[in-house]
Amino acid sequence: MIRTIEWTDAGVVMLDQKRLPAEEIYHTYADYEGVAEAIRSMIIRGAPAIGVAAAMGLAIGVKNAAAESPSIEELDRKFDVICRVIAGTRPTAVNLFWAVDRMKAVYARVRSQGTEAIRNALIDEALTTHREDIEANRAMGRAGQELIPDGARVLTHCNAGALATAGYGTALGVIRAAVEAGKKISVFADETRPWLQGARLTAWELAKDGIPVTVITDNMAGYFMKKGEIDCVIVGADRIAANGDVANKIGTYSVAVLARENRIPFYVAAPVSTLDLSIPNGDHIPIEERSPDEVRVIQGVAITPRDIPAANPAFDVTPARYVGAIITERGVVRAPYEVVFNTYDTNSTFCSPA
Amino acid sequence: MIRTIEWTDAGVVMLDQKRLPAEEIYHTYADYEGVAEAIRSMIIRGAPAIGVAAAMGLAIGVKNAAAESPSIEELDRKFDVICRVIAGTRPTAVNLFWAVDRMKAVYARVRSQGTEAIRNALIDEALTTHREDIEANRAMGRAGQELIPDGARVLTHCNAGALATAGYGTALGVIRAAVEAGKKISVFADETRPWLQGARLTAWELAKDGIPVTVITDNMAGYFMKKGEIDCVIVGADRIAANGDVANKIGTYSVAVLARENRIPFYVAAPVSTLDLSIPNGDHIPIEERSPDEVRVIQGVAITPRDIPAANPAFDVTPARYVGAIITERGVVRAPYEVVFNTYDTNSTFCSPA
Repeated sequence: MIRTIEWTDAGVVMLDQKRLPAEEIYHTYADYEGVAEAIRSMIIRGAPAIGVAAAMGLAIGVKNAAAESPSIEELDRKFDVICRVIAGTRPTAVNLFWAVDRMKAVYARVRSQGTEAIRNALIDEALTTHREDIEANRAMGRAGQELIPDGARVLTHCNAGALATAGYGTALGVIRAAVEAGKKISVFADETRPWLQGARLTAWELAKDGIPVTVITDNMAGYFMKKGEIDCVIVGADRIAANGDVANKIGTYSVAVLARENRIPFYVAAPVSTLDLSIPNGDHIPIEERSPDEVRVIQGVAITPRDIPAANPAFDVTPARYVGAIITERGVVRAPYEVVFNTYDTNSTFCSPA
Repeated sequence: MIRTIEWTDAGVVMLDQKRLPAEEIYHTYADYEGVAEAIRSMIIRGAPAIGVAAAMGLAIGVKNAAAESPSIEELDRKFDVICRVIAGTRPTAVNLFWAVDRMKAVYARVRSQGTEAIRNALIDEALTTHREDIEANRAMGRAGQELIPDGARVLTHCNAGALATAGYGTALGVIRAAVEAGKKISVFADETRPWLQGARLTAWELAKDGIPVTVITDNMAGYFMKKGEIDCVIVGADRIAANGDVANKIGTYSVAVLARENRIPFYVAAPVSTLDLSIPNGDHIPIEERSPDEVRVIQGVAITPRDIPAANPAFDVTPARYVGAIITERGVVRAPYEVVFNTYDTNSTFCSPA
């Protein structure tokens, strides 16, 4: 059982994803600033996990603030600051803003009952967010595994596993559910430069579960597709627009184009909290640009001439026309996506990224 | 001026491409076994450079053998062994076999004149191979630069530069010629995992020449194409079949598919010595599978769980239908490639890879 993130009396405990697979280290964050920095520096990453971390960050921020017995107006001001800091950590994964908005709604609902009630309600809501995310992944697995044939060789990109969620995983949850259904599944894991989520995290998770996995460099996926050695692709998502355009880890678009060129089904698994129905298509999704040093330096080793320019967009957008199906906890959806998505209540009016 | 490989009285001198860009170290190989190991371990790499290294390896082998004043029959036997060892170093780049066959033809032509004449003729031929490769690259540059518009942002994959040849480069030679023609060119260099030829070698070469270069991970190429920030793609080749199918560094196929999807011209620059007219198409090109440790370990740092399976095909084949033009020292060729290629004398009946 992988413990990605947990709420404890001492604080929010996270498995350090920067150190995996070499070391399995847990950090405890006793204040919201620590949680914000953990999200920003990718101690924790993966859209659903970021959503849970954000909820817990707000809860611990309000818990600490409430301990100082503030007036309700003081708590309002502090909560506003906490929300801004947490919402400003990363721009692309919409689950972050979904979680902030969900917590804001709870705050507003119980505000008249005083600081103690607010504190308890926010902690409860953060725990609910954690529990519901695992439940959503299980439901996604049950629905999505029907798409994975027995014997399938499945390609995945980045890490959309237990480490990217509260547990079980989205894309890897579907793979786990297929294995639990008795199917023989093997996985190709794109290493996923620059941050190597596939080589480091997906390989580690699947090996722990005994699911056969082969690591490949990102530029090998097309080779294996063309050779007929990949039967389907399944990835997670960081934000899905109303029309089904999918923002996900950089390189996902390339995998989707190669899959279509080779007539291989390309699936996306993500909870409803990843839907952003406020935007009509993927052009409106902000793409985070991270430090060029993530490209120039791998685990402390420089791989380029010093100070050479490098680009580092962390995500790309895969147009809906390349997506064979989107799997959420409510089932398998196919194009035209907006028809089904518009019947969903995503429990949120999305706030804008900072 | 980059000195990739040179013939000296002390032996064959090579710039160590495993150590670049951190260190600029030259090795001198005084026997053919050293040259063979340098090719195998990728101290030198790039199809045309491998061809020149093979020619020089045969020349130094025969030079050393001739110094022992063997009978012509003894020299025949030794030459046969030397040819087998050199030809057995790497399977995909056909320039290796082209060079071996070219040296064999010279040997046969002067054999009746005795060991001293054979020795001198083989050294001369190796030097000619070196000189002609640079001339071919210059000619490729002149012909190919017409395809590169002023202001172009050019994507390249792997390293097809001075370091991959005797000098100047194939794909980078075309870029250099465009710059020399007064055009403003900037380059996106795919880092080219697992061996990082783009991040390490292409970035180093272009920075030395003052040509603007931005390093990206392989999985970012599609993102920049879709954004409209790449105007054309130019790569080298390790073997080109009679129909124009191109074997090149792993990931080239993916770049070609993405280029076509985004209506971006995709060009290949390679000398005629890279043509293998003995095979009708790319299905017949042997693809070298290298150690999984090249994927699992980057410059001494493990990036995956220990002993996780990893695949490492070093090349892929891009079908001719994705290739906009092939640039050789004889000019720019467009499909159907066989019509033009069949008029070429590649000076060789290709021997089979070992």
